[in-house]
Amino acid sequence: MPRLMNGAELAGEIVERAAKRAASFLEKTGRKPCLATVLVGDDPASVTYVRMKQRRCAGAGVESRHVQLPAATTTAEAVAQVRELSEDPAVDGILVQHPVPAHVDERAVFEAIAPGKDVDGVTMHSFAAMALGEPGFLSCTPGGILRLLDAHGVEIEGKHAVVIGRSPILGKPAALLLLARNATVTVCHSRTADLKAVVRTADIVVAAVGKPEFVRGEWLKPGAAVVDAGYNPGNVGDVDFKSAEPVAGWLTPVPGGVGPTTIAVLLEQTVEAAWEGNSTPR
Amino acid sequence: MPRLMNGAELAGEIVERAAKRAASFLEKTGRKPCLATVLVGDDPASVTYVRMKQRRCAGAGVESRHVQLPAATTTAEAVAQVRELSEDPAVDGILVQHPVPAHVDERAVFEAIAPGKDVDGVTMHSFAAMALGEPGFLSCTPGGILRLLDAHGVEIEGKHAVVIGRSPILGKPAALLLLARNATVTVCHSRTADLKAVVRTADIVVAAVGKPEFVRGEWLKPGAAVVDAGYNPGNVGDVDFKSAEPVAGWLTPVPGGVGPTTIAVLLEQTVEAAWEGNSTPR
Repeated sequence: MPRLMNGAELAGEIVERAAKRAASFLEKTGRKPCLATVLVGDDPASVTYVRMKQRRCAGAGVESRHVQLPAATTTAEAVAQVRELSEDPAVDGILVQHPVPAHVDERAVFEAIAPGKDVDGVTMHSFAAMALGEPGFLSCTPGGILRLLDAHGVEIEGKHAVVIGRSPILGKPAALLLLARNATVTVCHSRTADLKAVVRTADIVVAAVGKPEFVRGEWLKPGAAVVDAGYNPGNVGDVDFKSAEPVAGWLTPVPGGVGPTTIAVLLEQTVEAAWEGNSTPR
Repeated sequence: MPRLMNGAELAGEIVERAAKRAASFLEKTGRKPCLATVLVGDDPASVTYVRMKQRRCAGAGVESRHVQLPAATTTAEAVAQVRELSEDPAVDGILVQHPVPAHVDERAVFEAIAPGKDVDGVTMHSFAAMALGEPGFLSCTPGGILRLLDAHGVEIEGKHAVVIGRSPILGKPAALLLLARNATVTVCHSRTADLKAVVRTADIVVAAVGKPEFVRGEWLKPGAAVVDAGYNPGNVGDVDFKSAEPVAGWLTPVPGGVGPTTIAVLLEQTVEAAWEGNSTPR
């Protein structure tokens, strides 16, 4: 039976520390750190995510300001709105909820976020910083994954990590962060010839593919640490928990694994941005 | 016996096309495309590389302007110099010869290059663009490697590519470009536990480790395409050519493989930058 990587508990610890730093910030500056959330359209899942993030903000003494844009918003309008937030000294962090409607150029909207406020780690600058070991904010889910592994003492250096999925905000940054920690890293995806055989060689598996219960226990090397970064409708992850449970050495539950740590890292980085923005121009 | 991936021949074709576009540029604008090269210090290998690049420029109708800075140059001085070139409308591309002396912050100097002039693909912007499929200039050596594979009909999609080395201008971008072409990509390095076993599973091997004759034929899967991106003193690559020759399906010679294509891509991108800069503000 695997040991569970408890994301809720870890997230609680991270948020507690962030809340203390948010309180000191309030004491010093007379205002709370502020996260602006931007949602284009009204996708129900996105609405839920944004509300959850706002609730967590409130719980940690972080103000949240929500900008709701209609589904018909143009790229130019969304960019202008985000740019305004980037220039607003009362806003410390900006989160543009992914995905935006198909007619909006998401990359352009992301790039309108000032690097110093990119607390969700979605800009090209943050991506390159993550990849090249330069200072910057992490993409929250990959950042949370590393925290989960570390909190549970899962060794990374010298291990073979297999990341399934290569999205700009999850698979690729997760691979690069694991590489920075001296794992040997393989990135797999829909065109990978024999996925099961590759997964079988992994000491650490990160499933970030967005297919419910896709990764099966039979694919795993016994004892592997399995991180399920999937979050599909009905609270179902990318890993088939039932078949993985008898084989994996470590396993994240869904929900209660990667999800809570993602939001915790977001909060932590927002408070960090507030402190940094308050001491240096941005 | 493997078939050789002839970099000199491919480079000749690329440069010929670039020269034609450079000639049209001269005809249209009254000036040649211009590459500025910046060398800090007088490392003999770097001096040789820069001279080689200048000669190739001259041969292709591209002007080169050399900025030689003393070894004692500070980061601030080097940054100021590069920034000046970034703002100079007569300069189309900027190459800062890697490596700079240890006391200089190379990243800071690279970041002073305007993205539209980063024809060597070393800035964080170019890195992220490469990784995320956004428009931008490629890191020249990885760009050349992809051209070599394509020119010789080596299939990439669905194949397992193993990149040995993870430098910001070679290993990492090579891995990301291969990933963009739908290879399953593994990045190995000095902390990789069993390098030979990993290399043995590779359909494509990119050796970018900087250790002479490090990769041996016994490590290779028979028929693998082997790209030697190493260039060590005495014209020696990272692959032991003699032992690799009977096993590999495709093999790049050193010299005459990756080296010439690197410079060809640099020239091509310089001419491209001239055309783009002439039509859009930068």
